[in-house]
Amino acid sequence: MRLLVLGTVAYDTVKTPFGRREQALGGSATYCALAASYFTEVAILGVVGEDFNDSDRELLIRHKVDLSGLSTIAGGRCFHWQGEYGFDLNTAVTLRTDLNVLESFDPIVPEHLREVPYVFLANMDPEIQIKTLDQLTGPKVVAADTMNYWIEQKRGGLLDLLARVHILVINEAEVRQLTGDYNLLRAGHRILSYGPKMLIVKRGEYGVLKITDDSVFAAPAYPLESVFDPTGAGDSFAGGFIGHLAGNGNLQPEALRQAIIMGSVMASYNVEDFSTARLASLSRQEIDERYRGFRRLTEFGDL
Amino acid sequence: MRLLVLGTVAYDTVKTPFGRREQALGGSATYCALAASYFTEVAILGVVGEDFNDSDRELLIRHKVDLSGLSTIAGGRCFHWQGEYGFDLNTAVTLRTDLNVLESFDPIVPEHLREVPYVFLANMDPEIQIKTLDQLTGPKVVAADTMNYWIEQKRGGLLDLLARVHILVINEAEVRQLTGDYNLLRAGHRILSYGPKMLIVKRGEYGVLKITDDSVFAAPAYPLESVFDPTGAGDSFAGGFIGHLAGNGNLQPEALRQAIIMGSVMASYNVEDFSTARLASLSRQEIDERYRGFRRLTEFGDL
Repeated sequence: MRLLVLGTVAYDTVKTPFGRREQALGGSATYCALAASYFTEVAILGVVGEDFNDSDRELLIRHKVDLSGLSTIAGGRCFHWQGEYGFDLNTAVTLRTDLNVLESFDPIVPEHLREVPYVFLANMDPEIQIKTLDQLTGPKVVAADTMNYWIEQKRGGLLDLLARVHILVINEAEVRQLTGDYNLLRAGHRILSYGPKMLIVKRGEYGVLKITDDSVFAAPAYPLESVFDPTGAGDSFAGGFIGHLAGNGNLQPEALRQAIIMGSVMASYNVEDFSTARLASLSRQEIDERYRGFRRLTEFGDL
Repeated sequence: MRLLVLGTVAYDTVKTPFGRREQALGGSATYCALAASYFTEVAILGVVGEDFNDSDRELLIRHKVDLSGLSTIAGGRCFHWQGEYGFDLNTAVTLRTDLNVLESFDPIVPEHLREVPYVFLANMDPEIQIKTLDQLTGPKVVAADTMNYWIEQKRGGLLDLLARVHILVINEAEVRQLTGDYNLLRAGHRILSYGPKMLIVKRGEYGVLKITDDSVFAAPAYPLESVFDPTGAGDSFAGGFIGHLAGNGNLQPEALRQAIIMGSVMASYNVEDFSTARLASLSRQEIDERYRGFRRLTEFGDL
């Protein structure tokens, strides 16, 4: 196994100006693993309830996702998120969060996954992210996400985590919140001093910035005429990014940039339909075509 | 003469979290012409009052800016804008606007400037922008800017203008306001149906998007650790862009992309200091070095 993804496998009820879906497959690990599955072998570490549908399980298995780390709680129900987007599609208003089986989630990494070289710790309580890391025998690359709630409520645990993470993938507002500095580049450099070698700043419809000690890389988001549902865009990005890295095993700067574009490709497809509909039905041809689209979108010559 | 810039030559009182400047040289034509002056011959069409300082006039002349179209109103005072930026530096709060000599501005293009091939009509009453165009004998490229006020108050005049403009350079919020469509790409295509062959969407710290009927080009803004004063960034961008186009006379897609990067270079330098301080003191070496910086910031290889 090349990549382990810790995260949620959830049912989402989502309303956007373009429609509504009830109890549709979602969750950070779902989006991340599906996106990564086009590039590498991936396993999910997470928990579901008895209500987890066979058809959703089969969807993941069809994408060759290893579900041996996805435990099912008897009598439990899947994590459920309900949210709504306005016309700008930039920020979701959370209407309801039912933790359900997540409330007592204790991550146990199956024996055969402990030597996995690539790890993505999706947004979750930093204690659970650390507990996962503690069970691994020295992964080559650890990437992690977090959110405003943990920055506010579990700053200590989050800083402990950051000391052990190679790549932090968080959104722009969180970069500012974590450091108290509005200037993104300065804030990014401060975060690097907390441990990570690399920061990837997610900026929604404006794309991402990769910040290291000695370089910055800017990738735009792919301009689309129709965005139906931004849910999961960040996790699809992360999945395409780390999945591509894990798949080719190259950590040179050029490979990191390509992986960031691949993450952006996956995020751009994901928002074209509700839930995992688009992400689950891509061809490698479509993926490569959009990668070339990113080249056409950004390239310009020397003077 | 290669380029004519219609716009304001003004004094600004600006406060940012990093300092305050009183009655500092500003105005759309000032920023645009200074930025363009590094690449081409440029003339200003505008108006000042008797309070216009000799030292500011000399600054423009040192940059070989033709001021024969800059009339001085006896007893009048220069346009004055007072604004303040918060820590995000994204949006200025206008505290005061004194139109002064602008109130009765009637643009008269000097005879020797009427055959100018490149024109930038900075944000101004569409009637004045049109009156300027009416005096020109068929410019090769007309680019224009506008603002929310004219979209709201003089929509008819603005649409008349757009039918005669090749390149519209406006900010993201104005694209949405002008079309009533939140989706930037769709809104952009609608604006192209009003007349322009090309739309350049300014997105502040996120850079710009160039939209034509059959392509999109995304350029990031240059990430800076210290932004002191964003005033004039949009006009510096426009000046670098149209100045570079005018300077090399090439309108191929590749040249347009390079010009957009050059506009971004000039905007990035401009915000590094108050007023025109940085823009007025650049070397061609610095400009080329930052152009290469944009290449390093954005390049990634084929798969």
